[in-house]
Amino acid sequence: MKTVDSIIHADHIATVDNNDTVLNHHALIVHQGKIIDIVPSSDVSERFESSDIVHLPDHILCPGFVNAHTHAAMNLLRGYADDYPLMTWLNDYIWPAEGQWVDPAFVATGSRLAIAEMLRSGTTCFNDMYFFPDITAVEAESAGIRACIGLIVIDFPTCWANSGDEYFAKAEQVHKQFLNSDLISTALAPHAPYTVCDDNLKRVIECSDRLNTPIQMHIHETAFEVSQSEEQIGKRPLKRLEELGLLNSRLQAVHMTQVNEQEISQLNDLGVHVIHCPQSNLKLASGFCPIAKLSKAGVNIALGTDGSASNNDLDMLNEMQTAALLAKGASGDAAAVPASEALRMATINGAKAMGLAHITGSLEIGKCADIQAIDLGQLETSPRFDPISQVVYSASRHQVTHLWVHGKQLMKQRQLTTIDETKLLSEVKEWQAKLLAFRNNQQSS
Amino acid sequence: MKTVDSIIHADHIATVDNNDTVLNHHALIVHQGKIIDIVPSSDVSERFESSDIVHLPDHILCPGFVNAHTHAAMNLLRGYADDYPLMTWLNDYIWPAEGQWVDPAFVATGSRLAIAEMLRSGTTCFNDMYFFPDITAVEAESAGIRACIGLIVIDFPTCWANSGDEYFAKAEQVHKQFLNSDLISTALAPHAPYTVCDDNLKRVIECSDRLNTPIQMHIHETAFEVSQSEEQIGKRPLKRLEELGLLNSRLQAVHMTQVNEQEISQLNDLGVHVIHCPQSNLKLASGFCPIAKLSKAGVNIALGTDGSASNNDLDMLNEMQTAALLAKGASGDAAAVPASEALRMATINGAKAMGLAHITGSLEIGKCADIQAIDLGQLETSPRFDPISQVVYSASRHQVTHLWVHGKQLMKQRQLTTIDETKLLSEVKEWQAKLLAFRNNQQSS
Repeated sequence: MKTVDSIIHADHIATVDNNDTVLNHHALIVHQGKIIDIVPSSDVSERFESSDIVHLPDHILCPGFVNAHTHAAMNLLRGYADDYPLMTWLNDYIWPAEGQWVDPAFVATGSRLAIAEMLRSGTTCFNDMYFFPDITAVEAESAGIRACIGLIVIDFPTCWANSGDEYFAKAEQVHKQFLNSDLISTALAPHAPYTVCDDNLKRVIECSDRLNTPIQMHIHETAFEVSQSEEQIGKRPLKRLEELGLLNSRLQAVHMTQVNEQEISQLNDLGVHVIHCPQSNLKLASGFCPIAKLSKAGVNIALGTDGSASNNDLDMLNEMQTAALLAKGASGDAAAVPASEALRMATINGAKAMGLAHITGSLEIGKCADIQAIDLGQLETSPRFDPISQVVYSASRHQVTHLWVHGKQLMKQRQLTTIDETKLLSEVKEWQAKLLAFRNNQQSS
Repeated sequence: MKTVDSIIHADHIATVDNNDTVLNHHALIVHQGKIIDIVPSSDVSERFESSDIVHLPDHILCPGFVNAHTHAAMNLLRGYADDYPLMTWLNDYIWPAEGQWVDPAFVATGSRLAIAEMLRSGTTCFNDMYFFPDITAVEAESAGIRACIGLIVIDFPTCWANSGDEYFAKAEQVHKQFLNSDLISTALAPHAPYTVCDDNLKRVIECSDRLNTPIQMHIHETAFEVSQSEEQIGKRPLKRLEELGLLNSRLQAVHMTQVNEQEISQLNDLGVHVIHCPQSNLKLASGFCPIAKLSKAGVNIALGTDGSASNNDLDMLNEMQTAALLAKGASGDAAAVPASEALRMATINGAKAMGLAHITGSLEIGKCADIQAIDLGQLETSPRFDPISQVVYSASRHQVTHLWVHGKQLMKQRQLTTIDETKLLSEVKEWQAKLLAFRNNQQSS
């Protein structure tokens, strides 16, 4: 008889292993942050004992979601400017607000708001890109969520750094700061092809090779980005990145709404990961990423919510539903991206893209215990013919009831255990007042 | 000082009047089922008293949603067959299950499950089309929800009727049964152009004129429907319906994914209502209804969830979000279908389509008190720069906390007052067992 940290029983376990195995009436055995066994519920008491035994009838245990692209701190700009064309949105609203207000305090509160929202909707790991990445990392560690923190590189001065040298120096510094963290990893995060020059991209490659980190970058987000590059340098951005040596399995290409047959085949050959953000692409009218085709070609596709300023939530359950529905609609094939594949995109595929598939993204023996429990016993998910289908097409975020990261319980019956929600909401209200006054001032001037 | 039935105070009221007026810190004064006044919260105590005073800080009161197209009883087939092409889905799964199981008991439980789900997500009125419409109407009246019940007409025998004569006789009978109901109205519901012949469509027009009811019909749901008609009779279905005299302001054209410029202009000239079901159209890969164009042309567009077998929920908040996002994505214009317009499509436009705009669909003096309260104080809808934007882009169904129809409170702090959820779920489990055994049997045979 072995004494373990936690035993979690549930009606269903979606392992998201290579065979998409779903187990009924099994338990996850969790010890020292890891899943050490998965056994039929009826066999548990013979083999394991624990002071923390959780019974979740009518629930399904799933791997925690991996939100493969977001800008957490931008949660403070949720709904700040909706229904504007992209350039009006950026030039007249988002950039002025960021220019005025983004500082460590903004990033701390915004990131904590985002992390609380992600935990409450089943996300156990996120991939971030924003200014003051060290602050976001500290908030993630303190809340206990796993994160890959993007170390931003951009050609012009911002609140975070003033020169190429400073961006890279700070990137290395933040990377070192979290080198021994159980939860935090880092990625180089050159913003986009149109904001980072060849020289800085070469330094990104050198730095990523040396530090052994992935690279995430907004690529081919809009048709305008592609045609502008064709006009200016006579080639598509992806071609330029290929020539610079960026296209390989370290790269997470975020958005990719513009992609031709030759590029699809190349992405697959070179092992580039595509990060799909369907709701943001719809909201900003950026185009449709052809994930049915990409998936058929074999490309690894992961899902991200993008930031709350263009979505306007960090709800991976809803993003997964949109991804599955939109893939069918855009490809004209109702069988495209079935529920089990959508669930892979929201979990293991993100872990693969971030180089964390040995740690998280599925419920398998030896992996970290990054787990969410979803209550399928509510009438919105009844009757229940196929639990995975109910998760993808019918469940919504309030049905996520329990969540663990690295074996630690971060949500219990919808209550967060590491974030003080009342204090957080009061901080958010202070920011709301400042930002609202600023926006109203801008509009009237 | 006047004594009234109820007084409901909230931080915001989205009236959805002609100017999309949003009031802050006001109260709705409800008496004998109607909104008799809307006054600043600070003035209420001088003018009104009530034994039922509700204070909802951080909430927004909105008109209850009008779900303009569903097949309520099909809730029992939620998730029964997902990710199949349309014809496999229908021929191999849905039709055999319906053929075997649809009877008054199935329709009663399925409708009650749908009504409970709709009430819990803010819907106060729905437009139905299914067999045994009298049973659905009885369930709606008993639960206290408003409904327009479609009286189905189809060319072949079904569990509901065996001949054209019987369909029309039963239609008139059900119409008469609910003629004096406060909550139930009826519509003629010829299924689709390809399942109802000219003679029966002429009878539909005659019957609708005589009974003074709207007509709802699936039209141009897929490209195949249109091309098949062109092959068989040399014209598009809409042209045939025009020649028969069906195109007028009584008609609700459901789906309309295939519509050319000339048809858009004709729909507008003739006052035909378009019922848009974006999630169902995506899931069955039926095509994109061009609502940005239709809206620009002036056509009244209402939203429906379609049935749970092809969605897989009856969540109008989520449907409204999908409609707004998809309109931007499909039209390439991030400014298309802004939040306030999406809210109109989910409320007043549905009421207009159903001929109920004098009764419901907005919060205005003299209309029935069909009201939902949404809690915007949660962190998923914080900060709050624009409450309408938060409702459309960030809120989800569990944030609907209170709901009234015709002045009667049907949900209070998420608890339904007229439906026994425990009993309902136990009935649903019995159906689940029967249907699952049947499906597994079919698959193995």
